[in-house]
Amino acid sequence: MANRFDTISFLSDYGLDDEFVGLVKSVIRTVSPTTAVIDITHNIEPHDVRAGGLALARSVQYLAPGVVLAVVDPGVGTERQPVMIEVADGAAYLVGPDNGLLAPAVSMVGGATGAFVLDNTDYHLPAPGPTFHGRDIFAPVAAHLCNGVPPTELGTPIEPARLLPGLLPVSQFEDDGSISAEVLWIDRYGNAQLNVDPADLEAWPASVSVLGGRVDRSALRVTTYADIPTGSLGLVVDSYGLVSVAVDRGSAAFELELAPGQAVSLRPAVDREPTRQVPVTLSSKPTVGERPQEGPTCS
Amino acid sequence: MANRFDTISFLSDYGLDDEFVGLVKSVIRTVSPTTAVIDITHNIEPHDVRAGGLALARSVQYLAPGVVLAVVDPGVGTERQPVMIEVADGAAYLVGPDNGLLAPAVSMVGGATGAFVLDNTDYHLPAPGPTFHGRDIFAPVAAHLCNGVPPTELGTPIEPARLLPGLLPVSQFEDDGSISAEVLWIDRYGNAQLNVDPADLEAWPASVSVLGGRVDRSALRVTTYADIPTGSLGLVVDSYGLVSVAVDRGSAAFELELAPGQAVSLRPAVDREPTRQVPVTLSSKPTVGERPQEGPTCS
Amino acid sequence: MANRFDTISFLSDYGLDDEFVGLVKSVIRTVSPTTAVIDITHNIEPHDVRAGGLALARSVQYLAPGVVLAVVDPGVGTERQPVMIEVADGAAYLVGPDNGLLAPAVSMVGGATGAFVLDNTDYHLPAPGPTFHGRDIFAPVAAHLCNGVPPTELGTPIEPARLLPGLLPVSQFEDDGSISAEVLWIDRYGNAQLNVDPADLEAWPASVSVLGGRVDRSALRVTTYADIPTGSLGLVVDSYGLVSVAVDRGSAAFELELAPGQAVSLRPAVDREPTRQVPVTLSSKPTVGERPQEGPTCS
Repeated sequence: MANRFDTISFLSDYGLDDEFVGLVKSVIRTVSPTTAVIDITHNIEPHDVRAGGLALARSVQYLAPGVVLAVVDPGVGTERQPVMIEVADGAAYLVGPDNGLLAPAVSMVGGATGAFVLDNTDYHLPAPGPTFHGRDIFAPVAAHLCNGVPPTELGTPIEPARLLPGLLPVSQFEDDGSISAEVLWIDRYGNAQLNVDPADLEAWPASVSVLGGRVDRSALRVTTYADIPTGSLGLVVDSYGLVSVAVDRGSAAFELELAPGQAVSLRPAVDREPTRQVPVTLSSKPTVGERPQEGPTCS
Repeated sequence: MANRFDTISFLSDYGLDDEFVGLVKSVIRTVSPTTAVIDITHNIEPHDVRAGGLALARSVQYLAPGVVLAVVDPGVGTERQPVMIEVADGAAYLVGPDNGLLAPAVSMVGGATGAFVLDNTDYHLPAPGPTFHGRDIFAPVAAHLCNGVPPTELGTPIEPARLLPGLLPVSQFEDDGSISAEVLWIDRYGNAQLNVDPADLEAWPASVSVLGGRVDRSALRVTTYADIPTGSLGLVVDSYGLVSVAVDRGSAAFELELAPGQAVSLRPAVDREPTRQVPVTLSSKPTVGERPQEGPTCS
Repeated sequence: MANRFDTISFLSDYGLDDEFVGLVKSVIRTVSPTTAVIDITHNIEPHDVRAGGLALARSVQYLAPGVVLAVVDPGVGTERQPVMIEVADGAAYLVGPDNGLLAPAVSMVGGATGAFVLDNTDYHLPAPGPTFHGRDIFAPVAAHLCNGVPPTELGTPIEPARLLPGLLPVSQFEDDGSISAEVLWIDRYGNAQLNVDPADLEAWPASVSVLGGRVDRSALRVTTYADIPTGSLGLVVDSYGLVSVAVDRGSAAFELELAPGQAVSLRPAVDREPTRQVPVTLSSKPTVGERPQEGPTCS
């Protein structure tokens, strides 16, 4: 039996402090010694299915051909089902819980062409408790799939339409011409990715007003981080093709008090320069004895 | 010389901020290019031999066949000896410091069938200082062992009985029928693994009183996390077969103020419901002007 | 076309929370499936080129033969150039941004014997935005180099002298006989590596006065951590051959309030014992009603 795949791309919320990731890889290594495991990330916040699904969707087009193993699984051991999803007529498979985690990535690569409930316990590890499906179900199934075991042997086919869909937030134009968007992701550098297509801003001026939570700031549309004037915000087309709020060598998330899932409003800012860049021209001179107000909205 | 093993499972307290783990793997890659390294974890608290030994004991039965390399080594450079322990008559080897770190895992797989002091410096790297045995002794020895170098060439045989034993805490029944236990491990999700065999609770009622530190709470014995009523504690048989205190999508360690090594007392709780689940039936109504007491013990 | 290298050693400031490291590895795996990637570390502080360059310099002599991929790149997308540096006449290559990050490691292995600007976009990934050169330029180029694509095909040769040099701090003897040094690195255990050659201390007494920031302490020159008397500081030749300030099972960085880049002054301390070791002989008895001063400088 020839090996079908030789790479498993692995994402989870297991973290790197416990041995969870190591045990999943050990099981894969034992079942399928020639399969390589590529870690996407394991530091998804515990139980954050949305963040895991988005990370997977951002990643999927870059992954090596083969199997995706993803586990963010607050409902482990309940009736939510362990599944395997076929995409591109068997060119790749995604293995994980049927809780919406895999759905955005599946959409990104053209949708499911098949789906299987992983109910053949012959390919699972015997488990002392029902709480670690990554080690006991998903890892051995993914490894056997790489080895060439047919999907129909690993589980029972179901209609892909029965899988739990993933819900991705969509930005929209409001009547006043603004865009109501949402923060999809804050990366290590503090850049805040929005669910906004750069094409939506094409007709806009260079300066855009960004309202996130309590802070309202102007941002300059720029090509790369270094084009952002010191102290200003910028809007960059990020490496995934979406609009991202950024500060050169600083954290936009910190300055705008942004977090994943937060609502952000974008509006054209035709009559203002980026605030912090040229504060003098925008400030009204404080009268003697009057304390100048702080913060970008008044400068 | 045919390769003897092709996998090294690697645990340490090196963390992932410095290059320590990378250098150990680089040395292995250089000495034995066809050997794969599987990381168990490197985020054992610095110098916490007990935590490292327990993580290794939990992991060992799932590891791929081959060599275990484990380094939590506060006594590096002292007279504590670098050793290699044979188990199952050579089916696998554990390499690391003789400080009790390897002992619990060795016990889990049937005990040592041989032991060697790693005193043949021909197989060590020349070292500028005596502080990084992982890179300079353990990594090259583990790699040469994988390559097929005989153990007797790598070190001097010693009696396994001379190895430092690992001390694992044992729970016990008290005269009043309670169980005195200890927290072995707090995982990423806040579940607190106890050194308690589920069989010890078989004759107990569904509700168990858990006293850890200053907090006394009732917990329901359940099959999986999702069976724990919202706001309540549960006792789950975890994925390693031990009793674990858990909160569904919450942290039992936080709620009970638990930490590894802490004493916990379990008692049957026949006449009470889990406290937070039905607080009204258990609360005495505060008199006017009297501030209601806080916390689960009075609700 | 035979493969030229089979190992890429990878260092970055990408962290492990986002999928950045995973995507770089996925691209490498896709382009060059037989190449192994060894992580040196990815937790360099964001944009800290100095720390990344030092970690690489410490590591380089231990790395497996092949390609080094290093990305700490605050200027991504600007005119700073993506480069590939040849060392030892093609025995190895370093790939990354031309911002000084690679320079210390290149020096450590004898200097550059060639350099190339990575301007052949045929070997890059098409990118939605200019912010992720690790995934879009460095990873595919490193992988193609491993596959055997000639360096001249991947980029345009430039004079190595045109590369941005790395600036490494040099310690120096002062007129009063002290050494002005600098903290290069604080490791996970709190040891503070100085840019001091052990040979510089050869003629010194066993006890050395260490002045870092606001704290002045005596330290004993010892061979290994365990030789440091409890509560005292020690000076150890670390595993890279430099002088390191250490506390046995404690953090020297915490006790001396040290951070990377901080100035430290070393002086011979002939007439004093390590302070905390024998506090009684060094303390003046406080008069009644006088509060004894705190801290090591007065004990």
